[in-house]
Amino acid sequence: MSKVRVHNVTISLDGFAAGANQRLDAPFGDGVGWGDELHSWFVAATEDVAAGKTGIDADHLARGDRNIGATIMGRNMFGPQRGPWADESWKGWWGDNPPYHHDVFVHTHHPRPTLEMAGGTTFHFTDEPLETVLGRAVDAADGQDVRIGGGAAVIQQYLRAGLIDELHLVIAPMLIGRGERLLDNLGDGIDGYRVSEMVTSPAVTHVALVRR
Amino acid sequence: MSKVRVHNVTISLDGFAAGANQRLDAPFGDGVGWGDELHSWFVAATEDVAAGKTGIDADHLARGDRNIGATIMGRNMFGPQRGPWADESWKGWWGDNPPYHHDVFVHTHHPRPTLEMAGGTTFHFTDEPLETVLGRAVDAADGQDVRIGGGAAVIQQYLRAGLIDELHLVIAPMLIGRGERLLDNLGDGIDGYRVSEMVTSPAVTHVALVRR
Repeated sequence: MSKVRVHNVTISLDGFAAGANQRLDAPFGDGVGWGDELHSWFVAATEDVAAGKTGIDADHLARGDRNIGATIMGRNMFGPQRGPWADESWKGWWGDNPPYHHDVFVHTHHPRPTLEMAGGTTFHFTDEPLETVLGRAVDAADGQDVRIGGGAAVIQQYLRAGLIDELHLVIAPMLIGRGERLLDNLGDGIDGYRVSEMVTSPAVTHVALVRR
Repeated sequence: MSKVRVHNVTISLDGFAAGANQRLDAPFGDGVGWGDELHSWFVAATEDVAAGKTGIDADHLARGDRNIGATIMGRNMFGPQRGPWADESWKGWWGDNPPYHHDVFVHTHHPRPTLEMAGGTTFHFTDEPLETVLGRAVDAADGQDVRIGGGAAVIQQYLRAGLIDELHLVIAPMLIGRGERLLDNLGDGIDGYRVSEMVTSPAVTHVALVRR
């Protein structure tokens, strides 16, 4: 049976996955440079994986792509626009050949036509309920697992609903002060989870949550 | 010159130092057993220190008592009562011989007479401003450092005011979901701090914040 997994979601020491006021010229929100600092471990680990190196960060990063057949994300992760689409020229942050290579379901109150990209990535835009979208993603994954890509609000919704099987998050050694907290507004959903791993590399701390 | 230090403050993975509704029969607030779970590393490390053992947790724990000449705490850390003192029979959580053995300054809107305990601990109750209380504590420390003992609200106030030199906190691998967040409401105070250490033992992750 397909698992629902979250991987490589980076938060600051004070718990923020993104700052306030995300927008096109500041995809992680207000503040200079901290979006880069927050994800610097990710960039370094990506280079390590590409070079065939192993290590705590590279191993955790690579795990996130293994056996994933479909991805679900929030509209804010797909793009910086809010409200109705002014036009449909925006095709995501990732260029013509996005690094998914499978079906990606984008939760949005403003659906638009399905978008087929090079390399096998197809973006589906939907305002259906979580369970319906997850069902479609499981079908699309065809026996592989489904990844919830983010952002924080979407992960919270799936966690609160108890729909996530494994959540890997990464604590970066920095303070942001304000923005969007990942582990917040979880209600009783969190009672079903326990920490199964906590390990620190020279750069960050990796934490895994799994069902009790 | 005296430093102002915070040590061994334990927070959950989701950032809480205490739950909601702290009271006499639930000093860490609502919820069964998690106060014990949050601090289980502390109990084990205390036993290790007493037995002369070393290790990541024991070493961090012991550091918190080194070269400390005075302690500052909030009234909620001194006791579970709120509002005016019904009587003054409460003498803290720690019995007749508290583990401080120096002057302890308790921030409270409801001052009461100074309380001399066995073993050299003297509790002073004050509604003076942070800077005044810190000045008194520095004098009392007589060349040694001053420790801010807690709870979360008092640590936040000193951090926001930029008055803390070193902050050692401990992340326990558990979720609490609601309560009092330590790294919250810090305003621009946090801009003066950086993470100087992050290390994980088999039990917890230790993090140190210092001035930039």
